Amino acid sequence: MSGWVQIVGIGPGDDALVTPQVQAALAEATDAVGYIPYVERVAQNPNLTLHPSDNRVEIDRSQHALEMASEGKRVVVVSSGDPGVFAMAAAVFEAVEHGKPEWRNLDIRVLPGITAMLAASAACGAPLGHDFCAINLSDNLKPWALIEKRLRLAAEADFAMAFYNPRSKSRPEGFEKALETLKAACGDNRPMIFARNVSRPDQTIKIVPLQETTPDMADMRTVVLLGSSQTRIIEREGAPMVYTPRSVAS
Amino acid sequence: MSGWVQIVGIGPGDDALVTPQVQAALAEATDAVGYIPYVERVAQNPNLTLHPSDNRVEIDRSQHALEMASEGKRVVVVSSGDPGVFAMAAAVFEAVEHGKPEWRNLDIRVLPGITAMLAASAACGAPLGHDFCAINLSDNLKPWALIEKRLRLAAEADFAMAFYNPRSKSRPEGFEKALETLKAACGDNRPMIFARNVSRPDQTIKIVPLQETTPDMADMRTVVLLGSSQTRIIEREGAPMVYTPRSVAS
Repeated sequence: MSGWVQIVGIGPGDDALVTPQVQAALAEATDAVGYIPYVERVAQNPNLTLHPSDNRVEIDRSQHALEMASEGKRVVVVSSGDPGVFAMAAAVFEAVEHGKPEWRNLDIRVLPGITAMLAASAACGAPLGHDFCAINLSDNLKPWALIEKRLRLAAEADFAMAFYNPRSKSRPEGFEKALETLKAACGDNRPMIFARNVSRPDQTIKIVPLQETTPDMADMRTVVLLGSSQTRIIEREGAPMVYTPRSVAS
Repeated sequence: MSGWVQIVGIGPGDDALVTPQVQAALAEATDAVGYIPYVERVAQNPNLTLHPSDNRVEIDRSQHALEMASEGKRVVVVSSGDPGVFAMAAAVFEAVEHGKPEWRNLDIRVLPGITAMLAASAACGAPLGHDFCAINLSDNLKPWALIEKRLRLAAEADFAMAFYNPRSKSRPEGFEKALETLKAACGDNRPMIFARNVSRPDQTIKIVPLQETTPDMADMRTVVLLGSSQTRIIEREGAPMVYTPRSVAS
């Protein structure tokens, strides 16, 4: 048996952000599984069978990948961004832990990619240039109280912050509550960055003072960054640049 | 004037992790500045003048890059990993903010790369698969008390954690203090991961229960990850896999 599973990160959208390592995995694979729009990004290849699936079936998709690898297939699990950041890698390992014993000894690898928060940070400067945290704002898989606790503690720690999945159509109220919590916990007007369709031709970057933010500024195609109390804005002729200095005075 | 500065992330070591976007910037540049070992990784090109410099001269190096771009040069500032994560991007923007007014209107871009924590996470599974934070453990540029406060709050928030610059030759005591703080604040035996020379041929990954860790397990070539209270280890024939589940029960 020479099957394998490689959970590959195809980055936030621009093909120029796909690593050669991931390109090589895609070229060698016999089968690709993943959420429909991500699988659609994989270059057509007559030797590659595509298995697109809907959102929220991450465990089914993982089991399918592991089963095919058990049968000798070379399977890529296609993830946007980096597979290890709010994406498919944890789902595959969850399926391994609770699945067939023989799945544990499959050749399973994770190939890193450019995750959305780092592409967004690069697009506007270096707002994550000092200590920071990354929080998934979706409460599909964790209680809202935990999200709120993390937001308050992150503000107290004065981390810069990155927020994934800020606002879904089905639960638009979460981001509104998150903004209320952050406005109160931070208490200042540090910049929040709304990066939509980052790295794609229709990318938009909006820099908004925290107290002036409104929930409609984000949707599920937006990654949201928030500076720390130290974050600076550099005004210039074009779009301003935002960065968090490396130093904090004693 | 057609000069520019591109602050490029060349990833943690493996050339297969350098994005095509960064490769293109390196091919177009006239000048490359950066810390000696990173500039040495840039492929020799007869049209590219290399300006390697020592560690801890990040602002001098940034000013040099900006000055050359003002003169019409196409300058890459070479950063390991991702330039926006404890690397050169924040230093360049600091030099811009406090430097010559005309530097503000230069064409300055940041090209993201694979940062060490995500390559390390991929190499052992998905330990950063849920909410996490990234902390630079060097106290060269911030007071130690702030680092300790962040470690305690990150443990209280139950973040997975990534630590950069855990231990320098000149200040070996910092990591010892960090481990003491984490052992007390976490109180359990969650896995800590020591990833040394990640993605290079001599990569080593050690997974150690937190209470059994010792300061000598890390050096400046190590990125250290710590699971949350939820992080799981999957035992198997080869190296175990570590992951943090996507779900937290209500």
